[in-house]
Amino acid sequence: MVGGGQLARMTHQAGIALGIDFRVLAGSAADSAALVSGSVHVGNDRGSADLPAFAKSCDVLTFDHEHVPEPVLRELEEAGAVVRPSRAALRYAQDKLRMRTRVQELAAPCPRWRPVTTPAHVESFAEAGKAAGGRSAGPDWPVVLKAARGGYDGKGVWIVHNAAEARDVIDRAAAEEVPLLVEEKVAFRRELAVQVARSPYGQLAVYPVVETVQRDGICHEVIAPAPGLDEEKATRAQELAIELAHALDVVGMLAVELFETEDGVVVNELAMRPHNSGHWTIDGARTSQFEQHLRAVLDLPLGSPRTTAPYTVMANVLGGEDPDVYGRYIHVMAKDPELKVHFYGKEVRPGRKIGHVTVAGEDHGDLLARARDAAAYLKGDPR
Amino acid sequence: MVGGGQLARMTHQAGIALGIDFRVLAGSAADSAALVSGSVHVGNDRGSADLPAFAKSCDVLTFDHEHVPEPVLRELEEAGAVVRPSRAALRYAQDKLRMRTRVQELAAPCPRWRPVTTPAHVESFAEAGKAAGGRSAGPDWPVVLKAARGGYDGKGVWIVHNAAEARDVIDRAAAEEVPLLVEEKVAFRRELAVQVARSPYGQLAVYPVVETVQRDGICHEVIAPAPGLDEEKATRAQELAIELAHALDVVGMLAVELFETEDGVVVNELAMRPHNSGHWTIDGARTSQFEQHLRAVLDLPLGSPRTTAPYTVMANVLGGEDPDVYGRYIHVMAKDPELKVHFYGKEVRPGRKIGHVTVAGEDHGDLLARARDAAAYLKGDPR
Repeated sequence: MVGGGQLARMTHQAGIALGIDFRVLAGSAADSAALVSGSVHVGNDRGSADLPAFAKSCDVLTFDHEHVPEPVLRELEEAGAVVRPSRAALRYAQDKLRMRTRVQELAAPCPRWRPVTTPAHVESFAEAGKAAGGRSAGPDWPVVLKAARGGYDGKGVWIVHNAAEARDVIDRAAAEEVPLLVEEKVAFRRELAVQVARSPYGQLAVYPVVETVQRDGICHEVIAPAPGLDEEKATRAQELAIELAHALDVVGMLAVELFETEDGVVVNELAMRPHNSGHWTIDGARTSQFEQHLRAVLDLPLGSPRTTAPYTVMANVLGGEDPDVYGRYIHVMAKDPELKVHFYGKEVRPGRKIGHVTVAGEDHGDLLARARDAAAYLKGDPR
Repeated sequence: MVGGGQLARMTHQAGIALGIDFRVLAGSAADSAALVSGSVHVGNDRGSADLPAFAKSCDVLTFDHEHVPEPVLRELEEAGAVVRPSRAALRYAQDKLRMRTRVQELAAPCPRWRPVTTPAHVESFAEAGKAAGGRSAGPDWPVVLKAARGGYDGKGVWIVHNAAEARDVIDRAAAEEVPLLVEEKVAFRRELAVQVARSPYGQLAVYPVVETVQRDGICHEVIAPAPGLDEEKATRAQELAIELAHALDVVGMLAVELFETEDGVVVNELAMRPHNSGHWTIDGARTSQFEQHLRAVLDLPLGSPRTTAPYTVMANVLGGEDPDVYGRYIHVMAKDPELKVHFYGKEVRPGRKIGHVTVAGEDHGDLLARARDAAAYLKGDPR
């Protein structure tokens, strides 16, 4: 696995049971996965310096992030590396302009969008929105500007209310040579996500649709399955994930982030790797997303995605001002013996994802309160 | 953790979520745990050569086996190492003569037994059994001879049918300076096991009583909880485990192996570490025995031992003649997507424990058939 973050860490954890020889290319020996893995190569996990040698030592190459540039992936494939998902699939996860274009071609529902290079483009897009009616009816402004590449966790997404704000973003993006797109700000009820695993053979395993609660563009909580979601929307979301996995020839886990609107679901983002919206599966599904990703990329038969409890709730633990998180987790364990803590071994910095907690049971409201409470306490928020 | 076997391997797997710095002292870099751990010290995990330096690098020392001699443990403790469970507790797991003496003092039910050094001792013990009546009524012979130290997985246990057979065992044991005891061969309905975790503070978490199916002295299958076990016997077994954990001052996991007889339960063996009878907890309990052992020895609050399914069945995978176990596990995964495989990364040798499989659900008969089928297929047994 290329990249030594928490996704690689939890993938290694799952790989132990599979008896595989899991190797990680980590940017630093202090990376989350590097701390716990038996076979760690420290090197550049984004460029072409160390990847070819690492790839030669592996049967299959997969990724903890989307940051390996397409030309590097091409070189690896041409040198005979088995890259899963492939370069051809990954470019849709790496570039939102390509992704939106392809999703639109596939007639999957997505927000109105267009590439932009000038404030005038943004203005005309917003004005057209005013006239369009239907799903995108309502206020023309604000609209959403997105960096086509390199964004994550709320980075690379800007809500702009007028042409002047749009100009600011466009100028900054131009200075860094980042292409932009503009999207309507979808009037959603809530955000959802659905994950599907796909093997090279084309076998699929789809997980239940979950509700994700975002704050400041960062996934804070996940409720699995999404409470009260009507059957038709749930099925449509799962079908969309399956269609996209096939059409984009994904191998491994695909996460589809969606908006639930009044009349349906709309595709927001894609990720082709284990995803924060699926951390609940470690404690709440027969096969975790991490084991499933490995089974898919290793061309093993997929495991059952069945849930093991009526509801499982996950809350991310962010770093706070006080780094003594281990002094606090004793109290969280004492208060709620059912709670599962997952720490990533990362240095605590304010706002950084340093772990997550999960709790499973019957009453999603109660579970959410408990997970939220534990995450807030671990962060060190005032009570 | 001292020792690099599969117990250390699965303890490391659990430790990843706790965000701890898990270190292992392994006899070889090819040991099960050494293959997957981030911090491996290769050295002598049974003698005094490497343990003191390893202990100095750790906050707490715990064990994957019982093979560290008492004088070495004493030295470690005297040098200030935090040893959990302590030398004083471990000697009951290391020496069956001490264990039986202590269990008897505590008035816990155990088989009739006595230390033996001559065939005449064995003969008089068997003849007395004939006369005793009650639980130990029935045939005087056969009786069970056991090595007081160093036995495991059926090694160090002999069923002898007469004085001549007893002499053979006694002569061999004398040559190796292994003390022996003789026990009545308990007429049991089935074998049971119960696990309890105990923290330094004295907090306890007790798991449900399970049924264990032994073959050739090796644990083959575990059904959790034990089907149809009457409430009174189940409670008595759990109480016994709690009493023993307190009385022996155990810190960490204690496994109590029991015989179920017509009228009660009888203590057979003790282990003070994660145990084969608890592997099911990874997939079938809110807190696995491996996480629980770590929480206990690190003096963290214990996790819930609650089951997550009505039944969970575990079957050990033994090595067979054909070492290509990975060629076969594809078929097992394809046949039963609900099945969880756990491989230990060990070289395949006939009869060696190389992994286990688990399956959870409602019907224990169906689950046992599926787990048994998968384990037999993985071993390569003829169909």
